[in-house]
Amino acid sequence: MKLYQHAPTPSCRRVTIFMKLIGVELESVTINGREGDNLSPDYKSKSVNGKIPLLEVEPGTYISESVAICRYLDEAHSNSANLFGANPLEKAQIEMWNRVSEFQGLYTAFQAFRNLTKIYADRETCVEAWGEESKQRVVDFVPVLESRLAESPFVATSQLTIADITAFIFVGFTQNALQIDVLGENSNIKSWFDKLSALPEFQ
Amino acid sequence: MKLYQHAPTPSCRRVTIFMKLIGVELESVTINGREGDNLSPDYKSKSVNGKIPLLEVEPGTYISESVAICRYLDEAHSNSANLFGANPLEKAQIEMWNRVSEFQGLYTAFQAFRNLTKIYADRETCVEAWGEESKQRVVDFVPVLESRLAESPFVATSQLTIADITAFIFVGFTQNALQIDVLGENSNIKSWFDKLSALPEFQ
Repeated sequence: MKLYQHAPTPSCRRVTIFMKLIGVELESVTINGREGDNLSPDYKSKSVNGKIPLLEVEPGTYISESVAICRYLDEAHSNSANLFGANPLEKAQIEMWNRVSEFQGLYTAFQAFRNLTKIYADRETCVEAWGEESKQRVVDFVPVLESRLAESPFVATSQLTIADITAFIFVGFTQNALQIDVLGENSNIKSWFDKLSALPEFQ
Repeated sequence: MKLYQHAPTPSCRRVTIFMKLIGVELESVTINGREGDNLSPDYKSKSVNGKIPLLEVEPGTYISESVAICRYLDEAHSNSANLFGANPLEKAQIEMWNRVSEFQGLYTAFQAFRNLTKIYADRETCVEAWGEESKQRVVDFVPVLESRLAESPFVATSQLTIADITAFIFVGFTQNALQIDVLGENSNIKSWFDKLSALPEFQ
């Protein structure tokens, strides 16, 4: 089994943090998206969405989409981390918060960043006004996360789950790439972010 | 247990088709999003994302996000439909195709529709140029689905799964709301769509 990835990117970090938390190590092949390594016909023949990361389960069998890769690894490697939950309600709460953190958080932040910086203008049409609007939607979402972390020690349940990984990557990306000071202005997000940052798996 | 929903909307149809396939019936409460029923403080206190549908598991315990609702119902009600898959590889393939059908398909189609029609201009800023770009991205995604359905009888695996529900809603929405003639120009999508449309659960 092999992971095609570019370690510093947000989507790849989601998978590698997840792997550390469940104790899985994989052979890794670097595919640099900014340099267009993922645009080759060979890579596209393996990846449904043409994106990074990509898991080669075995030659000819590939899984795209970071959450799908995490789910495969979690199901295939017995572990007690319960990052997707242990009962129906937990599983649903984790799916809900992971999706909310992704649709309203991380994915919106990606749309802001890509349309504002035009970093992939060689391969996609950028609309600056949508970048601005997406950035505003990120700003509007932050209080939802702050309020949730005022009432719960972790994003989805009382324990660390995949929703925390998604939200952690969202906050770091928003702070660094969008230069929105989430940590300076939200004490509950800050405490939770510091707590996760101190874990070896999140280094 | 109650489902807050507005039956004709795409996200609610995803859940009701899923429920029929696993044999679950629920008490239903109509919340009309276009009329702003979901904007009340009471509804917002129950729903993390303020959207429809919303599952009340019991008073005080709510699940938002259609896929999270489906996952709860699937886990809580024993059934043999396997709409989320029965082994690690199936589960991952279904998650992958459901996400691809959603991010590149349905969610992009929603962004096209909302920004072009400005149907929710009373509650969100619309960017027409992003509507146009999103519509083009939907057009660009259709061949991915057509090509997949040329090699597989269903979207994710050899059986009907939640990814088929997502893709079915995407195709219907794209055909009707975006007026892109997906069915007229893609014979594999057409055969698969007709096959699903003939099932009583998809009526």
